[in-house]
Amino acid sequence: MSALTGARFPRWYDPLDDRVCRAAWSRLIEPGDVQAWEFVDEHGAGPALRCLVEHQAHPLVPQRWRVRLEVVEPVRDLSVVARFGGTFVVPGDAEWPRGLDDLGVTRPVGLWARGPVGPASATARSVAVVGARTATPYGTELTSSIALGCTDAGFAVVSGGAYGIDAAAHRAVLAGQGVTVAVLANGVDRFYPSGNDVLLRAVAESGCVISEVPPGSSPTRYRFLQRNRIIAALARATVVVEAAWRSGAQSTANHALGLGRPVGACPGPVTSALSAGCHRLLRQGAVCVCDAGEVIELATCLGEAPAAEPVLTPQPHDGLDARQLRVYESVPVRTPASLDSIGRTAGLDAPSVRAAVAALVTRGLVTGAEGRWVRTRPGSSDGPG
Amino acid sequence: MSALTGARFPRWYDPLDDRVCRAAWSRLIEPGDVQAWEFVDEHGAGPALRCLVEHQAHPLVPQRWRVRLEVVEPVRDLSVVARFGGTFVVPGDAEWPRGLDDLGVTRPVGLWARGPVGPASATARSVAVVGARTATPYGTELTSSIALGCTDAGFAVVSGGAYGIDAAAHRAVLAGQGVTVAVLANGVDRFYPSGNDVLLRAVAESGCVISEVPPGSSPTRYRFLQRNRIIAALARATVVVEAAWRSGAQSTANHALGLGRPVGACPGPVTSALSAGCHRLLRQGAVCVCDAGEVIELATCLGEAPAAEPVLTPQPHDGLDARQLRVYESVPVRTPASLDSIGRTAGLDAPSVRAAVAALVTRGLVTGAEGRWVRTRPGSSDGPG
Repeated sequence: MSALTGARFPRWYDPLDDRVCRAAWSRLIEPGDVQAWEFVDEHGAGPALRCLVEHQAHPLVPQRWRVRLEVVEPVRDLSVVARFGGTFVVPGDAEWPRGLDDLGVTRPVGLWARGPVGPASATARSVAVVGARTATPYGTELTSSIALGCTDAGFAVVSGGAYGIDAAAHRAVLAGQGVTVAVLANGVDRFYPSGNDVLLRAVAESGCVISEVPPGSSPTRYRFLQRNRIIAALARATVVVEAAWRSGAQSTANHALGLGRPVGACPGPVTSALSAGCHRLLRQGAVCVCDAGEVIELATCLGEAPAAEPVLTPQPHDGLDARQLRVYESVPVRTPASLDSIGRTAGLDAPSVRAAVAALVTRGLVTGAEGRWVRTRPGSSDGPG
Repeated sequence: MSALTGARFPRWYDPLDDRVCRAAWSRLIEPGDVQAWEFVDEHGAGPALRCLVEHQAHPLVPQRWRVRLEVVEPVRDLSVVARFGGTFVVPGDAEWPRGLDDLGVTRPVGLWARGPVGPASATARSVAVVGARTATPYGTELTSSIALGCTDAGFAVVSGGAYGIDAAAHRAVLAGQGVTVAVLANGVDRFYPSGNDVLLRAVAESGCVISEVPPGSSPTRYRFLQRNRIIAALARATVVVEAAWRSGAQSTANHALGLGRPVGACPGPVTSALSAGCHRLLRQGAVCVCDAGEVIELATCLGEAPAAEPVLTPQPHDGLDARQLRVYESVPVRTPASLDSIGRTAGLDAPSVRAAVAALVTRGLVTGAEGRWVRTRPGSSDGPG
């Protein structure tokens, strides 16, 4: 027995095995489940899983998680993907793409990946080229030219593995012997749509195929839309070559804009319904890009410019994690307080408060005497004044 | 004898006839002559002309004015244009388009105009539609559609009377029985290019043909470029439909941007050299416009929004003309000064200072006693405290 519905934990369960536990969470939840991400982030994937299993009947456990408990078999999922030469990459791994962390509470719990190039290596210097499934010859030719130009400039090309613009982008990179990354809305054990089977197989053999849903998962409309946020977060810039007025590419572009990533759109004839989405994006602030050179400029000048962010006055709490910040803001400024009192203010249990206060003392932000703690005054970081 | 080179003034010369004297200046100078505009603005067209004639050998008189003195025949120019039913419109006339005043020191001294609709009436609610002479069928069809849509929405269409996009714009408006305005780089007595003779004749019969150069003037490259600033200043918004990478339309768009007027550019195939200039404009911040609706939105939402300017704290000197401001700033804040002293500080002659001080006293900005003058203190505008 390996499911999580019984009274005993299955043999695979080890709260310290973050990868296996995250693989379990990947099966339990749908992409972008904010509550799951916060739960896993607060307790760790293993302890969160134990808590879920032990309290599975508790009314605070969302029904959507409970119904999946019996299909959770992470070791099997990992071995299925391993059979294809794939892995499950989790935060902290060298191949975890750091761009995903910009997704905040909609970060994936892990990435299922296939192919000789790891997700971080493949996307470190990449642009997303996306667009309509029902592309015109104008769109596919322009896509090929842009994708090949990006390849020649040493950029990987990320796309969604769909017909039309996506396929043209992957195909051009393969022809140019570059690295291309297909982000799927279904499991990496099979390729969808079936007409792109040969193409996606070639991507998996030379580049990287990625999904946040476990093997065997089918692509749903919801997963397609969520998949778009992964594409936007992986690439330095997103370019829409052709798109109808309402389109998935528009959603990818919106995710990229929300992440502060540069977005480009290719112009086309105003008489083409498949350029209407691009012109709409141009009116919404996307940059007009006509060739690979302008796409590379978009991904380089803008994408490499966190230096362009305003220089802010350093704050004492810079670099604290969410829990440390919560505790720091609960430590009094004048009258020292006990750990219990701080815990009540912060809404956190004693071990969490103790760990956070210890970290704050190490940073010189909090000072203690006789079991009571107070914020260190600014300018007296050597100790209390 | 009517030229200005002799010792006696020709019979037409009357320093109080602003129109005739400005017509003379229109012949004397090339468009955009900043020194001429400042000279005429400071002294008035008539006195400036007298000064020029009386001191024509003076080294301060620019050679470029001196060489034209012998061809100045404003009465003849006015009668030539009158023969075509035309007029010479000058600042202060009801038909002087106020948008031209935004050109500042590059304002024209007057406008030669032909046609049943005056320049101000014709351009009060207008968009400029400009572009390549060697337009493609895509460009001319899009131009027709935009121009006709603007006509139907009650907008006049301003353009440059050239082949290609300009001609398509004028033609569509004529077909829709709307008002179209052709701004020429040559005199309004003849039509250039000759292939557009019939078209421009039709514009002159139903709308308005405008030029800042007098009748008989031929179009030079310099005049074409200067003409573009007039187009940009007359219209609420400027739209470029098709343009090569380097083009006159780019210059019109740059003038419009410099004037704070909205600029639109139509996208097209990236493979078309005649859309390259439009895509360049889109990358420079022009708004992507695909149809008449979006052009009208550009001209309405943005063009009608001087209300969108920041609300500034009113200053005592708001609304003063340049000379009054110069005198105001030369009046002491504390110790009253004589008119002579103020004139020395301002660098102005006694009559100018006297007139300006009188205006400032009327506005309550300056207070006088015993022939000495001082600035009125803020909050005591009823009189000295």
